[in-house]
Amino acid sequence: MTTDAIQRLAHRATVRKFTDRKVDDELLNTLLEVAAKAPNTGNMQQYSVIVTRSEEGKQRVAPAHFNQPAATGCDVLLTFCVDFNRFEHWCRVNDARPGYNNLQAFLWGVIDTVIFAQQFNTLAELSGLGCCYLGTTTYNAPAISAALELPDRVVPVVTLAVGYPAEEPTESDRLPIESIVHREKYQPSTDAGIRDTYYEKENLAESRRFVEENNKQTLAQVYTDVRYPRDTNEHFSKVYADFIASKGFC
Amino acid sequence: MTTDAIQRLAHRATVRKFTDRKVDDELLNTLLEVAAKAPNTGNMQQYSVIVTRSEEGKQRVAPAHFNQPAATGCDVLLTFCVDFNRFEHWCRVNDARPGYNNLQAFLWGVIDTVIFAQQFNTLAELSGLGCCYLGTTTYNAPAISAALELPDRVVPVVTLAVGYPAEEPTESDRLPIESIVHREKYQPSTDAGIRDTYYEKENLAESRRFVEENNKQTLAQVYTDVRYPRDTNEHFSKVYADFIASKGFC
Repeated sequence: MTTDAIQRLAHRATVRKFTDRKVDDELLNTLLEVAAKAPNTGNMQQYSVIVTRSEEGKQRVAPAHFNQPAATGCDVLLTFCVDFNRFEHWCRVNDARPGYNNLQAFLWGVIDTVIFAQQFNTLAELSGLGCCYLGTTTYNAPAISAALELPDRVVPVVTLAVGYPAEEPTESDRLPIESIVHREKYQPSTDAGIRDTYYEKENLAESRRFVEENNKQTLAQVYTDVRYPRDTNEHFSKVYADFIASKGFC
Repeated sequence: MTTDAIQRLAHRATVRKFTDRKVDDELLNTLLEVAAKAPNTGNMQQYSVIVTRSEEGKQRVAPAHFNQPAATGCDVLLTFCVDFNRFEHWCRVNDARPGYNNLQAFLWGVIDTVIFAQQFNTLAELSGLGCCYLGTTTYNAPAISAALELPDRVVPVVTLAVGYPAEEPTESDRLPIESIVHREKYQPSTDAGIRDTYYEKENLAESRRFVEENNKQTLAQVYTDVRYPRDTNEHFSKVYADFIASKGFC
């Protein structure tokens, strides 16, 4: 029975276009409740999720995601946040002194938040919904925080756009699993080995098109010069570091 | 069909005791391969997993996990790592200049690594295996790195202990889902509200036992004074921050 679920997850794909069909509120709640059964650090559940369903709400938060079509065209946006606000409030009313304004606590929060988000993603996909992670969440966290009125100690980490798929999404390629899995110790690669690892990816029609359209010599240059260039990474690193500090972390 | 999977995930629980039964290598590979189909940032797959199966290997890495029984008693330890080594090696042999020695890149790595780990966790649980996250990974990362010979640009984030369950694990409690889910905007809690949120948790037999055994007045104090105290958090924050820097991140 669960073999069927594993088969489906083996062929899952990200959905970026959605129909007008609404996600039932009860279904959404159930999936979130089941997702919260996923593991977390010390059972402290240092996370929250903000559900954006209203058109006004989506219009407020979508610019922070560069108005990408998945953000504006989905039925529901779920912003998953590290949340120490709730736990520390509980500490305050219980004469306890929390010591969580540091990197370790922030990391538990990020890990637990992502586990929760990914469990939701999986449950949603198994329920016939489509999802798309918006990686822009760690870029424009200050704007997202303002739009969602996130208080002190709450930091957005990932966002899922959710809805019913308007397309049969295409499975994307993955590197050979042998390049990801190391036995007993990390196995460094030779130059020839690394070329082998990326050979199939480099030779996809889509990859060749990326290289050509961007006037680059190699696919790697499309990533380093166009898609994820140093200046953008460094700019948004500073924005996020300042933002985390403003929320009382490391 | 997948309803069955959702039902199982609604009642999942962490397994900390394992039988001697071996996890079949082919099953392990298949689950890792399917897990890698989970979403990741820009399809860059900035992660690796080190599989520790040998007794010597487990003995090398278990002390970094304080020799907790799940670490020493499992069949397989999976150490999931942020890995920019592979991608940057590919960049180097392709005349591309990566700009990923910063917080944003590290965060993509952490997010993608945790998504991959959690997808494995779910697939393993659906296959009848039991898993336990070892939160000690971000504490003793330098020792783990040494034991697994992790090169530059590779940072361990989470570890899963995996095997066949020797016990019917107990489902653990969760906060009421209404305290986790916020509609449209973050909904701050009143003092009375926060007491309600934690009422059930505080009154579990286990919680009452924790408070008594540790000579504390409240459950919150068990967390802040005993389980996750400030000095430990601050110590390991510094260790991890130095370690990340030594691997060439932020």
